Amino acid sequence: MKILLAQINPTVGALAHNRDMIIGIIREHSKDADIIVFPELALTGYPPGDLLLESHFIQQVENSLTDILGAVTSTVVILGTIRRSGRQLFNSAAILQGKKIIGFRDKTLLPTYDVFDEDRYFTPAVIVENITLTISGQAVKLGIEICEDLWDREYPQKVSSELFSMGADMVINISASPYCVGKFNERLRLVTEKVAIGKKWFLYCNLVGAQDELIFDGRSFAVNPDGALTIAAKQFDTDMLWVDTKASYPHSVPSFNYWEEEVFSALTLGVRDYFRKTGFKTAILGLSGGIDSALTCAIAANALGAENVMGISMPSPYSSGHSILDARQLAGQLGILFYEMRIDCINRQFLEALDPVFADTPSGLAEENLQARIRGNILMAVANKIHGLVLNTGNKTEVALGYCTLYGDMCGAIGVISDLNKVQVYQISRWYNASRKQEVIPESTLNKPPSAELKPDQVDPFDYDEVSPLVDEIINDHRHLNYLVQKGYDETLARDMLEAIRMNEYKRRQAAPGLKVSAKAFGLGRRYPIVNGFKD
Amino acid sequence: MKILLAQINPTVGALAHNRDMIIGIIREHSKDADIIVFPELALTGYPPGDLLLESHFIQQVENSLTDILGAVTSTVVILGTIRRSGRQLFNSAAILQGKKIIGFRDKTLLPTYDVFDEDRYFTPAVIVENITLTISGQAVKLGIEICEDLWDREYPQKVSSELFSMGADMVINISASPYCVGKFNERLRLVTEKVAIGKKWFLYCNLVGAQDELIFDGRSFAVNPDGALTIAAKQFDTDMLWVDTKASYPHSVPSFNYWEEEVFSALTLGVRDYFRKTGFKTAILGLSGGIDSALTCAIAANALGAENVMGISMPSPYSSGHSILDARQLAGQLGILFYEMRIDCINRQFLEALDPVFADTPSGLAEENLQARIRGNILMAVANKIHGLVLNTGNKTEVALGYCTLYGDMCGAIGVISDLNKVQVYQISRWYNASRKQEVIPESTLNKPPSAELKPDQVDPFDYDEVSPLVDEIINDHRHLNYLVQKGYDETLARDMLEAIRMNEYKRRQAAPGLKVSAKAFGLGRRYPIVNGFKD
Repeated sequence: MKILLAQINPTVGALAHNRDMIIGIIREHSKDADIIVFPELALTGYPPGDLLLESHFIQQVENSLTDILGAVTSTVVILGTIRRSGRQLFNSAAILQGKKIIGFRDKTLLPTYDVFDEDRYFTPAVIVENITLTISGQAVKLGIEICEDLWDREYPQKVSSELFSMGADMVINISASPYCVGKFNERLRLVTEKVAIGKKWFLYCNLVGAQDELIFDGRSFAVNPDGALTIAAKQFDTDMLWVDTKASYPHSVPSFNYWEEEVFSALTLGVRDYFRKTGFKTAILGLSGGIDSALTCAIAANALGAENVMGISMPSPYSSGHSILDARQLAGQLGILFYEMRIDCINRQFLEALDPVFADTPSGLAEENLQARIRGNILMAVANKIHGLVLNTGNKTEVALGYCTLYGDMCGAIGVISDLNKVQVYQISRWYNASRKQEVIPESTLNKPPSAELKPDQVDPFDYDEVSPLVDEIINDHRHLNYLVQKGYDETLARDMLEAIRMNEYKRRQAAPGLKVSAKAFGLGRRYPIVNGFKD
Repeated sequence: MKILLAQINPTVGALAHNRDMIIGIIREHSKDADIIVFPELALTGYPPGDLLLESHFIQQVENSLTDILGAVTSTVVILGTIRRSGRQLFNSAAILQGKKIIGFRDKTLLPTYDVFDEDRYFTPAVIVENITLTISGQAVKLGIEICEDLWDREYPQKVSSELFSMGADMVINISASPYCVGKFNERLRLVTEKVAIGKKWFLYCNLVGAQDELIFDGRSFAVNPDGALTIAAKQFDTDMLWVDTKASYPHSVPSFNYWEEEVFSALTLGVRDYFRKTGFKTAILGLSGGIDSALTCAIAANALGAENVMGISMPSPYSSGHSILDARQLAGQLGILFYEMRIDCINRQFLEALDPVFADTPSGLAEENLQARIRGNILMAVANKIHGLVLNTGNKTEVALGYCTLYGDMCGAIGVISDLNKVQVYQISRWYNASRKQEVIPESTLNKPPSAELKPDQVDPFDYDEVSPLVDEIINDHRHLNYLVQKGYDETLARDMLEAIRMNEYKRRQAAPGLKVSAKAFGLGRRYPIVNGFKD
């Protein structure tokens, strides 16, 4: 059998666009394929969120499915979409052949944790069963499952095993599985486990493309009855992956050499899709001469083209000379647009206007935040003027601790590196320079002590080598004080970090959505109260 | 029997505080009560969100429950808390008597829609059954259910009816039911329906207090076996409601005379609790002379005391003379602190700095937003300086349409009137003046055409009498274009509004949390994608 895994990049809600893309692929490839497989909710895009509560939206999805039928020949099409039955909605795979809907297979396990809200919208499948299809005159028993149905460790029901035990000749999983570092290996391990039981082909077709905070990395693949990975599609790009169950495959599938490259590619896709899908071309960001804005800028240039990126240096009296030079050097190396706009005079005027309240008070946080917000205002003004979007440059460590200014450096349409801790920011920056075989990000940026430069001689009050992993343990693994102290972290430091994370929830609630690349990112998948009296 | 419904206001996560409050009530009232009832999740506060994913938090809740046991005499205590069993977590009522846990009753129906995420955390009850208790030597069969168990219309399982049919002598519902206009009548109607079947007492004990966006209005009540409402607790305040099943009650329960008064009281509680529970005293807000900031200011003064509210007028060359006068008059009437800080010079300095990009471009949205963001920066600077919080003054209509500036007038810790449409803002303002028997909010503010005053002679480009209800139909009721046109709305207008709502999701994602008073508010309970290609 020849099966095409159509790893496509639909846009949430863009039904006509998605439909036409699906029809195009069916038309182009039906003559060569026995089965064409599309990812989970390929027709609606994933995740459609509360669009699923609109009956009018559901109606139009159903209409689009009918339109697609017209293109379907004797080649079987398996397409992720929704199915309505009375007041119930299912996350479903439509099985199409000869201009007809042959059947549906509904998702059994509905993830309702982290970034997933499927219980909010869907009813789980009532039965699990294979579907028998006639392909080139032969009866083939297909097990079709959807995404979470594979991730059954926490559930009593084991969908893949049931399908195999009921005699599936092959299991096909259609997914919209968001990326995080190492996710592909997890998927492969799970599929390999299932094949060890079923001893049949297992095909995995994943969505690709970014949607708000989520990056779907594609990387569809096939495991043969011996449990070997035979072939895999591109990661972070659309791809048409042909699986021929009669062919023999070389046992080597290329992948990225460095995790830094993988993450850089993920964020590139995240930025590119956010702009493309919202109809924007130009990114604006503040270049402080520091590492966060430098890496963000490199990613933006890679995603959008240097000619579509504008960096703005906004020095104040507290900015060091090297900051401005580093910013300028980076911009020159990348070939982006670059402006310098000093904020001294604006700042002075603010302090004059604020004098009725500020007079005779010591300079402090208010004066520091003021500068950050002036910079935010400049970036937004430029973005509004040239119809661009501001990129947020905050990293996960500072967002966790609230070491950032709401409406100031927290401005932006999308957080590019907000799910990377400060240590990872350095690692990826160093990999980036190495991969480009030149000092694109200035050595001075890489080597100077990090500083917000909001008051004289300020440097960040953290040892990031200690604080970044500590914060990750708290955020990613829900670690509490006793555990952290037992693990060897300083008790006062751990207590301060726990408290800072708790106290700054209010800032994150108003933060730009940030691209998720770790197992636990801020935003959609982490839902803490702002008013929160829990002290560990 | 004498039953005390302890309508308390716990703080999410503040376990020691909540525990001590609960112990205090048990100690004070056990001698007079046969049963003391606390609301749903009274020990943790509601909703605890992802705190429930921390094993350390769960452990401390369990410890707190053990602490409470020490205070429990022969008086039965029914307390909303969580119950852990292996890896499963239940939203539960602990039944305590004589320093022991007599049993638990778990929540059966777990709401996972609108603002609720209970499937994310909880497992539903495995069995529904009554519990037989010995009270003053007599056996009493109690049906205990939790919040959503009453709201069974959309579920196949009917918990209240099951409890009655299994012989409950009385059903007690413990709730954390968020307020929206008219919610009490809905609760009463449901309970009355159940009593019509069961013909026994039904007691409803609700949480009171605000938590982030949600306002719990209390208003606990009892319906007797004849189906009559006998007595109800205060709305929007803590209360100890005594129900004596032997007593006769006058058939009249006081309530608010006007819906405007009810909403004003709800928002007062929302603001007061946000400040109290986050440890802040002082509110800062911009006073434009317009109706939104005027009403917000009146609510803040009511919630926090006029001496804790600071209004700042920030005129520009486009501000009308009456704007400044109206702002000053309002501040004087309310007796709040008042400052005037002009933004002209700051604005000029910004334009000078921006000249490299702005030169030779026509003045437009960028220049308008700039002013709004200067004002946001001033408010935040003052708040940072005096350790206060900025109140956001946006209304639901403008937030829906994106007629507001991100990081500008969208600043703030909490949105006070963000769930009121523009028409409601006027109605409540007029009621407010009438109730105070004086022109606290200036007549000029009430009567002039609304304007953002960001360019010469600007007035809001909407007829709010038409647009406000139209927007509410789209937001609150998911209405689509055809429906709206059939209902008589202008097609172009309806299309524009649908499009504006869709296109401005990105602003709302970074908006301040706003107090919910309608059936469908922005924020927690409305989850639309930002990247969204769906065109109705």
